[in-house]
Amino acid sequence: MKIDLADFRVKEGEKVKLDKWPTFVKPIYHSKEQYHELLGEQVTELSAQQQLLYASNRHAILLIFQAMDAAGKDGVIRHVMSGINPQGCQVFSFKHPSATELEHDFLWRTTQCLPERGRIGIFNRSYYEEVLIVRVHPEILQSQGVPDGLLDDESIWQHRYHSIVEQEKHLYRNGTRVIKFFLHLSKEEQRKRFLERIDEPEKNWKFSISDIEERQFWDQYMDAYEKCLSATSTETAPWYVVPADDKENARLIISRVILETLKKLDMHYPETDAERHQELQAIRQRLINEDPLAD
Amino acid sequence: MKIDLADFRVKEGEKVKLDKWPTFVKPIYHSKEQYHELLGEQVTELSAQQQLLYASNRHAILLIFQAMDAAGKDGVIRHVMSGINPQGCQVFSFKHPSATELEHDFLWRTTQCLPERGRIGIFNRSYYEEVLIVRVHPEILQSQGVPDGLLDDESIWQHRYHSIVEQEKHLYRNGTRVIKFFLHLSKEEQRKRFLERIDEPEKNWKFSISDIEERQFWDQYMDAYEKCLSATSTETAPWYVVPADDKENARLIISRVILETLKKLDMHYPETDAERHQELQAIRQRLINEDPLAD
Repeated sequence: MKIDLADFRVKEGEKVKLDKWPTFVKPIYHSKEQYHELLGEQVTELSAQQQLLYASNRHAILLIFQAMDAAGKDGVIRHVMSGINPQGCQVFSFKHPSATELEHDFLWRTTQCLPERGRIGIFNRSYYEEVLIVRVHPEILQSQGVPDGLLDDESIWQHRYHSIVEQEKHLYRNGTRVIKFFLHLSKEEQRKRFLERIDEPEKNWKFSISDIEERQFWDQYMDAYEKCLSATSTETAPWYVVPADDKENARLIISRVILETLKKLDMHYPETDAERHQELQAIRQRLINEDPLAD
Repeated sequence: MKIDLADFRVKEGEKVKLDKWPTFVKPIYHSKEQYHELLGEQVTELSAQQQLLYASNRHAILLIFQAMDAAGKDGVIRHVMSGINPQGCQVFSFKHPSATELEHDFLWRTTQCLPERGRIGIFNRSYYEEVLIVRVHPEILQSQGVPDGLLDDESIWQHRYHSIVEQEKHLYRNGTRVIKFFLHLSKEEQRKRFLERIDEPEKNWKFSISDIEERQFWDQYMDAYEKCLSATSTETAPWYVVPADDKENARLIISRVILETLKKLDMHYPETDAERHQELQAIRQRLINEDPLAD
Protein backbone atom coordinates (compact mmCIF):
# COMPACT_ATOMS: atom_id res chain seq x y z
CA MET A 1 0.00 0.00 0.00
CA LYS A 2 1.57 3.25 -1.13
CA ILE A 3 1.03 6.46 0.75
CA ASP A 4 2.11 9.96 -0.08
CA LEU A 5 3.42 11.57 3.08
CA ALA A 6 2.85 15.00 1.52
CA ASP A 7 -0.89 14.38 1.95
CA PHE A 8 -0.47 14.82 5.67
CA ARG A 9 1.85 17.79 5.58
CA VAL A 10 0.60 21.33 6.13
CA LYS A 11 2.14 23.59 3.50
CA GLU A 12 3.65 26.86 4.60
CA GLY A 13 0.95 29.53 4.54
CA GLU A 14 -1.86 26.98 4.07
CA LYS A 15 -5.06 27.74 5.93
CA VAL A 16 -6.03 24.60 7.85
CA LYS A 17 -9.69 23.64 8.33
CA LEU A 18 -9.51 20.49 10.40
CA ASP A 19 -12.85 19.07 9.27
CA LYS A 20 -11.25 18.81 5.82
CA TRP A 21 -8.40 16.69 7.22
CA PRO A 22 -9.22 13.02 7.79
CA THR A 23 -9.06 11.38 11.21
CA PHE A 24 -9.12 8.04 9.40
CA VAL A 25 -7.63 6.87 6.09
CA LYS A 26 -7.37 3.48 4.41
CA PRO A 27 -4.70 1.66 6.44
CA ILE A 28 -1.21 1.04 5.04
CA TYR A 29 -1.34 -2.51 6.45
CA HIS A 30 -3.89 -5.18 5.66
CA SER A 31 -3.52 -7.39 8.71
CA LYS A 32 -2.31 -7.07 12.29
CA GLU A 33 0.53 -9.38 11.40
CA GLN A 34 1.63 -7.26 8.51
CA TYR A 35 1.43 -4.15 10.69
CA HIS A 36 3.93 -5.70 13.12
CA GLU A 37 6.17 -6.68 10.25
CA LEU A 38 6.11 -3.21 8.67
CA LEU A 39 6.65 -1.44 11.96
CA GLY A 40 9.49 -3.80 12.84
CA GLU A 41 11.22 -3.06 9.53
CA GLN A 42 10.86 0.67 9.97
CA VAL A 43 12.09 0.61 13.56
CA THR A 44 15.16 -1.37 12.47
CA GLU A 45 15.85 1.20 9.74
CA LEU A 46 15.26 4.04 12.19
CA SER A 47 17.68 2.48 14.64
CA ALA A 48 20.40 2.32 11.98
CA GLN A 49 19.75 5.92 10.90
CA GLN A 50 19.90 7.05 14.50
CA GLN A 51 23.29 5.42 14.97
CA LEU A 52 24.54 7.27 11.92
CA LEU A 53 23.06 10.52 13.29
CA TYR A 54 24.91 9.88 16.53
CA ALA A 55 28.22 9.00 14.90
CA SER A 56 28.17 11.87 12.40
CA ASN A 57 27.29 14.28 15.22
CA ARG A 58 26.21 17.18 13.01
CA HIS A 59 22.43 17.24 13.20
CA ALA A 60 19.81 16.83 15.88
CA ILE A 61 16.17 15.87 15.42
CA LEU A 62 13.34 17.32 17.46
CA LEU A 63 10.00 15.52 17.26
CA ILE A 64 7.03 17.35 18.71
CA PHE A 65 3.80 15.53 19.51
CA GLN A 66 0.59 17.40 20.18
CA ALA A 67 -2.92 16.05 20.39
CA MET A 68 -6.12 15.85 22.34
CA ASP A 69 -6.10 13.33 25.21
CA ALA A 70 -6.17 9.63 24.30
CA ALA A 71 -5.02 10.32 20.75
CA GLY A 72 -2.11 7.92 21.25
CA LYS A 73 0.97 10.10 21.75
CA ASP A 74 2.46 7.82 24.39
CA GLY A 75 1.77 4.75 22.27
CA VAL A 76 3.54 6.30 19.29
CA ILE A 77 6.58 7.09 21.41
CA ARG A 78 6.62 3.60 22.92
CA HIS A 79 6.06 1.64 19.72
CA VAL A 80 8.04 3.73 17.26
CA MET A 81 10.94 4.74 19.47
CA SER A 82 11.49 1.55 21.49
CA GLY A 83 14.23 -0.29 19.69
CA ILE A 84 16.21 2.93 19.32
CA ASN A 85 19.35 3.19 21.40
CA PRO A 86 18.18 5.15 24.46
CA GLN A 87 21.61 6.76 24.60
CA GLY A 88 20.71 8.71 21.46
CA CYS A 89 17.13 9.54 22.34
CA GLN A 90 15.68 11.91 24.95
CA VAL A 91 11.98 12.17 25.77
CA PHE A 92 10.53 15.09 27.70
CA SER A 93 6.93 15.30 28.84
CA PHE A 94 5.87 18.76 29.81
CA LYS A 95 3.36 19.04 32.60
CA HIS A 96 2.09 22.06 34.46
CA PRO A 97 4.94 24.62 34.61
CA SER A 98 6.62 25.18 37.96
CA ALA A 99 6.68 28.53 39.77
CA THR A 100 10.28 29.05 38.67
CA GLU A 101 9.45 28.27 35.06
CA LEU A 102 6.58 30.74 35.14
CA GLU A 103 9.09 33.45 36.05
CA HIS A 104 10.57 33.08 32.56
CA ASP A 105 9.35 33.67 29.01
CA PHE A 106 7.20 30.94 27.51
CA LEU A 107 10.01 29.32 25.50
CA TRP A 108 12.49 29.10 28.36
CA ARG A 109 11.70 25.77 29.97
CA THR A 110 11.51 23.74 26.78
CA THR A 111 14.63 25.35 25.32
CA GLN A 112 16.70 23.74 28.05
CA CYS A 113 15.48 20.35 26.90
CA LEU A 114 16.37 20.74 23.21
CA PRO A 115 18.29 17.74 21.88
CA GLU A 116 22.07 17.78 21.68
CA ARG A 117 23.76 17.22 18.34
CA GLY A 118 23.55 13.58 17.30
CA ARG A 119 20.39 12.93 19.33
CA ILE A 120 16.71 12.57 18.69
CA GLY A 121 14.73 14.70 21.13
CA ILE A 122 11.05 14.04 21.69
CA PHE A 123 8.66 16.54 23.21
CA ASN A 124 5.49 14.91 24.47
CA ARG A 125 3.55 18.19 24.48
CA SER A 126 5.69 21.26 24.05
CA TYR A 127 5.83 25.05 23.86
CA TYR A 128 2.87 24.71 21.52
CA GLU A 129 0.68 24.30 24.62
CA GLU A 130 1.29 28.03 25.02
CA VAL A 131 -0.89 28.74 21.98
CA LEU A 132 -3.28 25.83 22.53
CA ILE A 133 -4.42 25.24 26.11
CA VAL A 134 -3.49 28.81 27.00
CA ARG A 135 -5.49 30.11 24.06
CA VAL A 136 -8.51 28.02 25.07
CA HIS A 137 -8.12 29.15 28.69
CA PRO A 138 -6.66 32.67 28.42
CA GLU A 139 -7.00 33.12 32.20
CA ILE A 140 -3.74 31.10 32.40
CA LEU A 141 -1.98 34.16 31.02
CA GLN A 142 -2.65 35.91 34.33
CA SER A 143 -0.25 33.55 36.09
CA GLN A 144 2.41 34.03 33.42
CA GLY A 145 3.16 37.64 34.26
CA VAL A 146 2.47 38.79 30.70
CA PRO A 147 2.72 42.62 30.49
CA ASP A 148 -0.73 44.17 31.02
CA GLY A 149 -0.97 45.81 27.64
CA LEU A 150 -0.93 42.40 25.96
CA LEU A 151 -3.65 40.68 27.96
CA ASP A 152 -7.04 40.38 26.27
CA ASP A 153 -5.36 41.25 23.02
CA GLU A 154 -5.30 39.11 19.88
CA SER A 155 -1.74 40.22 19.17
CA ILE A 156 -0.28 38.07 21.96
CA TRP A 157 -0.99 34.95 19.87
CA GLN A 158 0.56 36.47 16.77
CA HIS A 159 3.63 37.35 18.83
CA ARG A 160 3.84 33.82 20.17
CA TYR A 161 3.53 32.27 16.71
CA HIS A 162 6.25 34.61 15.52
CA SER A 163 8.60 33.71 18.38
CA ILE A 164 8.01 30.00 17.79
CA VAL A 165 8.60 30.21 14.04
CA GLU A 166 11.77 32.24 14.55
CA GLN A 167 13.07 29.84 17.20
CA GLU A 168 12.50 26.90 14.86
CA LYS A 169 14.25 28.72 11.98
CA HIS A 170 17.16 29.41 14.28
CA LEU A 171 17.31 25.72 15.16
CA TYR A 172 17.21 24.77 11.48
CA ARG A 173 20.12 27.09 10.70
CA ASN A 174 22.06 25.38 13.47
CA GLY A 175 21.45 21.81 12.38
CA THR A 176 18.32 20.76 14.28
CA ARG A 177 15.45 19.41 12.21
CA VAL A 178 12.07 20.01 13.83
CA ILE A 179 9.11 17.82 12.81
CA LYS A 180 5.74 18.38 14.40
CA PHE A 181 2.91 15.88 14.59
CA PHE A 182 -0.69 16.65 15.37
CA LEU A 183 -2.46 13.36 16.05
CA HIS A 184 -5.85 14.12 14.58
CA LEU A 185 -8.49 12.19 16.54
CA SER A 186 -12.26 12.38 16.09
CA LYS A 187 -14.35 13.40 19.05
CA GLU A 188 -16.29 10.14 18.78
CA GLU A 189 -13.10 8.05 18.87
CA GLN A 190 -11.96 9.94 21.98
CA ARG A 191 -15.29 9.08 23.58
CA LYS A 192 -14.74 5.39 22.83
CA ARG A 193 -11.22 5.43 24.22
CA PHE A 194 -12.29 7.22 27.39
CA LEU A 195 -15.01 4.62 27.92
CA GLU A 196 -12.41 1.87 27.49
CA ARG A 197 -10.19 3.47 30.09
CA ILE A 198 -13.11 3.50 32.50
CA ASP A 199 -14.41 0.03 31.69
CA GLU A 200 -11.08 -1.79 31.77
CA PRO A 201 -9.83 -1.66 35.38
CA GLU A 202 -6.18 -2.01 34.32
CA LYS A 203 -6.56 1.13 32.23
CA ASN A 204 -8.22 3.17 35.00
CA TRP A 205 -5.00 4.76 36.16
CA LYS A 206 -4.51 6.31 32.73
CA PHE A 207 -7.74 8.22 33.02
CA SER A 208 -7.60 11.62 34.62
CA ILE A 209 -10.68 13.57 35.61
CA SER A 210 -9.24 16.66 33.97
CA ASP A 211 -9.30 14.82 30.61
CA ILE A 212 -13.06 14.89 30.58
CA GLU A 213 -13.12 18.55 31.50
CA GLU A 214 -10.99 19.52 28.52
CA ARG A 215 -13.28 17.50 26.25
CA GLN A 216 -15.97 20.09 26.81
CA PHE A 217 -13.76 22.61 25.05
CA TRP A 218 -13.34 20.41 21.97
CA ASP A 219 -14.45 23.04 19.44
CA GLN A 220 -12.32 25.73 21.01
CA TYR A 221 -9.33 23.37 20.88
CA MET A 222 -9.93 22.57 17.21
CA ASP A 223 -10.08 26.29 16.55
CA ALA A 224 -6.82 26.89 18.43
CA TYR A 225 -5.15 24.00 16.57
CA GLU A 226 -6.30 25.31 13.19
CA LYS A 227 -4.87 28.74 13.85
CA CYS A 228 -1.67 27.30 15.25
CA LEU A 229 -1.08 24.84 12.40
CA SER A 230 -1.81 27.54 9.82
CA ALA A 231 0.59 30.00 11.41
CA THR A 232 3.51 27.75 12.33
CA SER A 233 3.91 25.12 9.64
CA THR A 234 6.94 26.06 7.57
CA GLU A 235 9.08 24.52 4.86
CA THR A 236 11.83 23.80 7.35
CA ALA A 237 9.70 22.84 10.36
CA PRO A 238 6.49 21.35 9.00
CA TRP A 239 3.39 20.13 10.79
CA TYR A 240 1.94 16.76 9.88
CA VAL A 241 -1.75 16.19 10.57
CA VAL A 242 -1.80 12.44 11.19
CA PRO A 243 -5.12 10.56 11.08
CA ALA A 244 -5.21 9.04 14.57
CA ASP A 245 -8.46 7.09 14.81
CA ASP A 246 -6.43 4.02 13.77
CA LYS A 247 -3.49 3.86 16.19
CA GLU A 248 -1.47 1.33 14.21
CA ASN A 249 -1.75 3.30 11.01
CA ALA A 250 -0.75 6.51 12.78
CA ARG A 251 2.42 4.81 14.06
CA LEU A 252 3.35 3.62 10.58
CA ILE A 253 2.82 7.07 9.06
CA ILE A 254 4.82 8.80 11.77
CA SER A 255 7.74 6.38 11.61
CA ARG A 256 7.89 6.90 7.84
CA VAL A 257 7.98 10.66 8.18
CA ILE A 258 10.83 10.44 10.68
CA LEU A 259 12.69 7.98 8.49
CA GLU A 260 12.31 10.12 5.36
CA THR A 261 13.59 13.16 7.24
CA LEU A 262 16.64 11.30 8.52
CA LYS A 263 17.43 9.87 5.10
CA LYS A 264 17.48 13.33 3.54
CA LEU A 265 20.19 14.53 5.90
CA ASP A 266 23.76 14.55 4.68
CA MET A 267 25.26 12.17 7.24
CA HIS A 268 28.30 9.94 7.16
CA TYR A 269 30.55 8.20 9.62
CA PRO A 270 33.54 10.40 10.53
CA GLU A 271 36.34 9.82 8.06
CA THR A 272 39.91 9.09 8.91
CA ASP A 273 42.17 11.66 7.24
CA ALA A 274 45.80 10.99 6.34
CA GLU A 275 47.17 12.53 9.52
CA ARG A 276 44.86 10.57 11.79
CA HIS A 277 45.52 7.44 9.80
CA GLN A 278 49.25 7.81 10.45
CA GLU A 279 48.65 8.44 14.11
CA LEU A 280 46.46 5.34 14.36
CA GLN A 281 49.14 3.25 12.69
CA ALA A 282 51.73 4.46 15.19
CA ILE A 283 49.43 3.44 18.04
CA ARG A 284 48.79 0.13 16.35
CA GLN A 285 52.50 -0.58 16.32
CA ARG A 286 52.78 0.29 19.98
CA LEU A 287 49.95 -2.09 20.84
CA ILE A 288 51.44 -4.87 18.73
CA ASN A 289 54.82 -4.46 20.43
CA GLU A 290 53.33 -4.75 23.90
CA ASP A 291 54.24 -7.99 25.56
CA PRO A 292 50.92 -9.50 26.64
CA LEU A 293 52.70 -11.69 29.19
CA ALA A 294 53.96 -8.60 30.97
CA ASP A 295 50.47 -8.00 32.39
CA MET B 1 23.03 -22.60 32.68
CA LYS B 2 22.46 -21.29 36.18
CA ILE B 3 24.42 -18.40 37.57
CA ASP B 4 24.43 -16.93 41.03
CA LEU B 5 24.33 -13.17 40.73
CA ALA B 6 25.73 -12.89 44.26
CA ASP B 7 29.05 -14.12 42.85
CA PHE B 8 29.50 -10.80 41.12
CA ARG B 9 28.33 -8.59 43.95
CA VAL B 10 30.79 -6.80 46.24
CA LYS B 11 29.65 -7.25 49.83
CA GLU B 12 29.57 -4.23 52.09
CA GLY B 13 32.95 -3.86 53.74
CA GLU B 14 34.61 -6.45 51.48
CA LYS B 15 38.15 -5.66 50.44
CA VAL B 16 38.34 -6.04 46.67
CA LYS B 17 41.46 -7.38 44.96
CA LEU B 18 40.62 -7.24 41.28
CA ASP B 19 43.01 -9.98 40.21
CA LYS B 20 40.84 -12.34 42.27
CA TRP B 21 37.74 -11.32 40.30
CA PRO B 22 37.37 -12.97 36.89
CA THR B 23 37.27 -11.01 33.64
CA PHE B 24 35.88 -14.15 32.01
CA VAL B 25 33.51 -16.86 33.25
CA LYS B 26 31.82 -19.80 31.57
CA PRO B 27 29.12 -18.19 29.42
CA ILE B 28 25.44 -18.43 30.37
CA TYR B 29 24.59 -19.13 26.70
CA HIS B 30 25.92 -21.96 24.58
CA SER B 31 25.37 -20.52 21.13
CA LYS B 32 25.03 -17.10 19.52
CA GLU B 33 21.46 -18.01 18.69
CA GLN B 34 20.63 -18.87 22.27
CA TYR B 35 22.26 -15.64 23.44
CA HIS B 36 19.86 -13.64 21.26
CA GLU B 37 16.94 -15.66 22.53
CA LEU B 38 17.89 -15.20 26.19
CA LEU B 39 18.58 -11.50 25.80
CA GLY B 40 15.31 -11.02 23.92
CA GLU B 41 13.37 -12.70 26.73
CA GLN B 42 15.03 -10.61 29.39
CA VAL B 43 14.52 -7.36 27.49
CA THR B 44 10.83 -8.18 27.10
CA GLU B 45 10.55 -8.82 30.83
CA LEU B 46 12.51 -5.65 31.59
CA SER B 47 10.19 -3.66 29.38
CA ALA B 48 7.13 -4.95 31.27
CA GLN B 49 8.75 -4.22 34.64
CA GLN B 50 9.67 -0.75 33.50
CA GLN B 51 6.06 -0.04 32.52
CA LEU B 52 4.99 -1.11 35.99
CA LEU B 53 7.68 1.10 37.53
CA TYR B 54 6.35 3.99 35.46
CA ALA B 55 2.71 3.36 36.31
CA SER B 56 3.26 2.79 40.04
CA ASN B 57 5.39 5.96 40.17
CA ARG B 58 6.98 5.29 43.56
CA HIS B 59 10.52 4.19 42.81
CA ALA B 60 13.29 5.22 40.46
CA ILE B 61 16.25 3.15 39.31
CA LEU B 62 19.73 4.54 38.78
CA LEU B 63 22.16 2.34 36.86
CA ILE B 64 25.78 3.40 36.95
CA PHE B 65 28.29 2.04 34.46
CA GLN B 66 32.01 2.42 34.99
CA ALA B 67 34.83 0.72 33.16
CA MET B 68 38.08 1.10 31.32
CA ASP B 69 37.72 2.12 27.65
CA ALA B 70 36.38 -0.49 25.21
CA ALA B 71 34.90 -2.58 28.03
CA GLY B 72 31.49 -2.39 26.33
CA LYS B 73 29.48 0.15 28.34
CA ASP B 74 27.81 1.62 25.26
CA GLY B 75 27.03 -1.84 23.92
CA VAL B 76 25.37 -2.86 27.19
CA ILE B 77 23.22 0.27 27.15
CA ARG B 78 22.28 -0.27 23.51
CA HIS B 79 21.55 -3.98 23.68
CA VAL B 80 19.98 -4.23 27.12
CA MET B 81 18.05 -0.98 27.17
CA SER B 82 16.83 -0.76 23.58
CA GLY B 83 13.35 -2.18 23.64
CA ILE B 84 12.55 -0.20 26.77
CA ASN B 85 10.12 2.67 26.34
CA PRO B 86 12.41 5.68 25.92
CA GLN B 87 9.81 7.76 27.75
CA GLY B 88 10.74 5.92 30.94
CA CYS B 89 14.48 5.83 30.45
CA GLN B 90 17.09 8.59 30.56
CA VAL B 91 20.74 8.12 29.64
CA PHE B 92 23.40 10.62 30.59
CA SER B 93 27.01 10.43 29.46
CA PHE B 94 29.33 12.57 31.46
CA LYS B 95 32.24 14.07 29.61
CA HIS B 96 34.79 16.62 30.72
CA PRO B 97 33.05 19.00 33.17
CA SER B 98 32.29 22.52 31.98
CA ALA B 99 33.70 25.65 33.61
CA THR B 100 30.35 26.27 35.30
CA GLU B 101 30.20 22.72 36.63
CA LEU B 102 33.71 23.04 38.04
CA GLU B 103 32.47 25.98 40.12
CA HIS B 104 30.36 23.51 42.13
CA ASP B 105 31.02 20.57 44.43
CA PHE B 106 31.82 17.28 42.74
CA LEU B 107 28.32 15.81 43.09
CA TRP B 108 26.46 18.82 41.73
CA ARG B 109 26.36 18.17 38.02
CA THR B 110 25.26 14.55 38.19
CA THR B 111 22.66 15.26 40.88
CA GLN B 112 20.71 17.33 38.40
CA CYS B 113 20.47 14.30 36.14
CA LEU B 114 19.11 11.86 38.72
CA PRO B 115 16.08 9.94 37.45
CA GLU B 116 12.58 11.09 38.29
CA ARG B 117 10.23 8.72 40.08
CA GLY B 118 9.00 6.01 37.74
CA ARG B 119 12.06 6.23 35.49
CA ILE B 120 15.23 4.28 34.89
CA GLY B 121 18.21 6.62 34.81
CA ILE B 122 21.49 5.49 33.31
CA PHE B 123 24.81 7.14 34.01
CA ASN B 124 27.43 6.25 31.41
CA ARG B 125 30.33 7.23 33.68
CA SER B 126 29.29 9.16 36.75
CA TYR B 127 30.41 10.96 39.90
CA TYR B 128 32.62 7.91 40.46
CA GLU B 129 35.05 9.43 37.96
CA GLU B 130 35.84 11.84 40.80
CA VAL B 131 37.55 9.03 42.74
CA LEU B 132 38.87 7.19 39.66
CA ILE B 133 40.35 9.37 36.92
CA VAL B 134 40.85 12.17 39.42
CA ARG B 135 42.63 9.81 41.81
CA VAL B 136 44.89 8.55 39.00
CA HIS B 137 45.56 12.13 37.89
CA PRO B 138 45.35 14.17 41.08
CA GLU B 139 46.50 17.29 39.19
CA ILE B 140 42.84 17.54 38.05
CA LEU B 141 42.00 18.58 41.61
CA GLN B 142 43.81 21.85 40.96
CA SER B 143 41.13 22.88 38.48
CA GLN B 144 38.36 21.90 40.89
CA GLY B 145 39.03 24.64 43.39
CA VAL B 146 39.42 22.16 46.26
CA PRO B 147 40.46 24.00 49.46
CA ASP B 148 44.27 24.02 49.74
CA GLY B 149 44.43 22.07 52.99
CA LEU B 150 42.94 19.04 51.26
CA LEU B 151 45.22 18.86 48.24
CA ASP B 152 47.93 16.19 48.36
CA ASP B 153 46.09 14.63 51.25
CA GLU B 154 44.74 11.08 51.39
CA SER B 155 41.70 12.26 53.32
CA ILE B 156 40.12 13.89 50.26
CA TRP B 157 39.34 10.42 48.87
CA GLN B 158 37.86 9.24 52.15
CA HIS B 159 35.70 12.37 52.20
CA ARG B 160 34.55 11.73 48.66
CA TYR B 161 33.68 8.10 49.38
CA HIS B 162 31.77 9.25 52.42
CA SER B 163 29.81 11.88 50.46
CA ILE B 164 28.98 9.34 47.75
CA VAL B 165 27.83 6.66 50.19
CA GLU B 166 25.69 9.16 52.07
CA GLN B 167 24.15 10.50 48.86
CA GLU B 168 23.27 6.97 47.76
CA LYS B 169 21.74 6.19 51.17
CA HIS B 170 19.71 9.36 50.93
CA LEU B 171 18.48 8.25 47.51
CA TYR B 172 17.58 4.81 48.86
CA ARG B 173 15.54 6.33 51.68
CA ASN B 174 13.66 8.34 49.07
CA GLY B 175 12.84 5.48 46.75
CA THR B 176 15.70 5.42 44.25
CA ARG B 177 17.54 2.11 43.86
CA VAL B 178 21.14 2.56 42.78
CA ILE B 179 22.95 -0.34 41.10
CA LYS B 180 26.55 0.05 40.03
CA PHE B 181 28.35 -2.00 37.43
CA PHE B 182 32.07 -2.22 36.94
CA LEU B 183 32.73 -3.93 33.62
CA HIS B 184 35.84 -5.86 34.45
CA LEU B 185 37.99 -6.16 31.32
CA SER B 186 41.45 -7.70 31.05
CA LYS B 187 44.26 -5.55 29.76
CA GLU B 188 44.88 -8.06 26.99
CA GLU B 189 41.25 -7.93 25.85
CA GLN B 190 41.40 -4.12 25.75
CA ARG B 191 44.48 -4.42 23.53
CA LYS B 192 42.58 -6.66 21.13
CA ARG B 193 39.59 -4.35 20.99
CA PHE B 194 41.75 -1.28 20.41
CA LEU B 195 43.50 -3.08 17.53
CA GLU B 196 40.08 -3.93 16.06
CA ARG B 197 39.04 -0.31 16.23
CA ILE B 198 42.18 0.65 14.35
CA ASP B 199 42.08 -2.18 11.82
CA GLU B 200 38.41 -1.90 10.91
CA PRO B 201 37.94 1.48 9.17
CA GLU B 202 34.26 1.69 10.14
CA LYS B 203 35.29 1.46 13.80
CA ASN B 204 38.01 4.13 13.52
CA TRP B 205 35.77 6.94 14.70
CA LYS B 206 35.23 5.14 18.00
CA PHE B 207 38.92 5.26 18.78
CA SER B 208 40.22 8.27 20.58
CA ILE B 209 43.91 8.99 21.01
CA SER B 210 43.32 9.70 24.68
CA ASP B 211 42.16 6.09 25.14
CA ILE B 212 45.66 4.82 24.54
CA GLU B 213 47.11 7.38 26.94
CA GLU B 214 44.93 6.20 29.80
CA ARG B 215 45.95 2.61 29.07
CA GLN B 216 49.43 3.45 30.33
CA PHE B 217 47.91 4.04 33.75
CA TRP B 218 46.21 0.63 33.85
CA ASP B 219 47.68 -0.44 37.22
CA GLN B 220 46.89 2.88 38.84
CA TYR B 221 43.33 2.60 37.57
CA MET B 222 42.95 -0.93 38.94
CA ASP B 223 44.22 0.36 42.26
CA ALA B 224 41.74 3.26 42.24
CA TYR B 225 38.90 0.90 41.31
CA GLU B 226 39.79 -1.53 44.11
CA LYS B 227 39.75 1.21 46.72
CA CYS B 228 36.55 2.67 45.33
CA LEU B 229 34.66 -0.63 45.11
CA SER B 230 35.78 -1.59 48.63
CA ALA B 231 34.68 1.74 50.10
CA THR B 232 31.39 2.34 48.30
CA SER B 233 29.66 -1.00 47.81
CA THR B 234 26.80 -1.14 50.31
CA GLU B 235 23.80 -3.35 51.02
CA THR B 236 21.47 -0.78 49.52
CA ALA B 237 23.66 0.40 46.62
CA PRO B 238 25.88 -2.52 45.65
CA TRP B 239 28.65 -2.73 43.10
CA TYR B 240 28.69 -5.65 40.67
CA VAL B 241 32.03 -6.63 39.14
CA VAL B 242 30.93 -8.03 35.80
CA PRO B 243 33.34 -10.19 33.78
CA ALA B 244 33.52 -8.20 30.54
CA ASP B 245 35.91 -10.09 28.26
CA ASP B 246 32.82 -11.75 26.77
CA LYS B 247 30.48 -8.91 25.78
CA GLU B 248 27.41 -11.08 25.26
CA ASN B 249 27.76 -12.75 28.64
CA ALA B 250 28.23 -9.39 30.35
CA ARG B 251 24.97 -8.14 28.82
CA LEU B 252 23.08 -11.20 30.05
CA ILE B 253 24.45 -10.85 33.58
CA ILE B 254 23.68 -7.15 33.75
CA SER B 255 20.13 -7.50 32.43
CA ARG B 256 19.49 -10.19 35.06
CA VAL B 257 20.74 -8.01 37.88
CA ILE B 258 18.48 -5.16 36.77
CA LEU B 259 15.53 -7.51 36.40
CA GLU B 260 16.04 -9.05 39.85
CA THR B 261 16.22 -5.60 41.42
CA LEU B 262 13.01 -4.49 39.74
CA LYS B 263 11.18 -7.64 40.72
CA LYS B 264 12.03 -7.14 44.38
CA LEU B 265 10.35 -3.74 44.47
CA ASP B 266 6.84 -3.50 45.82
CA MET B 267 5.12 -2.15 42.72
CA HIS B 268 1.54 -2.28 41.54
CA TYR B 269 -0.69 -0.43 39.15
CA PRO B 270 -2.53 2.42 40.90
CA GLU B 271 -5.75 1.10 42.36
CA THR B 272 -9.15 2.64 41.95
CA ASP B 273 -10.67 3.36 45.35
CA ALA B 274 -14.41 3.54 45.98
CA GLU B 275 -14.57 7.30 45.63
CA ARG B 276 -12.70 7.33 42.35
CA HIS B 277 -14.73 4.40 41.13
CA GLN B 278 -17.92 6.36 41.72
CA GLU B 279 -16.49 9.41 40.00
CA LEU B 280 -15.47 7.31 36.99
CA GLN B 281 -18.96 5.83 36.77
CA ALA B 282 -20.49 9.31 36.74
CA ILE B 283 -18.19 10.29 33.90
CA ARG B 284 -19.03 7.06 32.12
CA GLN B 285 -22.71 7.94 32.23
CA ARG B 286 -22.01 11.39 30.87
CA LEU B 287 -20.04 9.93 27.96
CA ILE B 288 -22.75 7.36 27.22
CA ASN B 289 -25.40 10.06 27.17
CA GLU B 290 -23.53 12.18 24.68
CA ASP B 291 -25.17 12.19 21.29
CA PRO B 292 -22.46 11.16 18.85
CA LEU B 293 -24.36 12.69 15.95
CA ALA B 294 -24.14 16.09 17.59
CA ASP B 295 -20.46 16.35 16.61
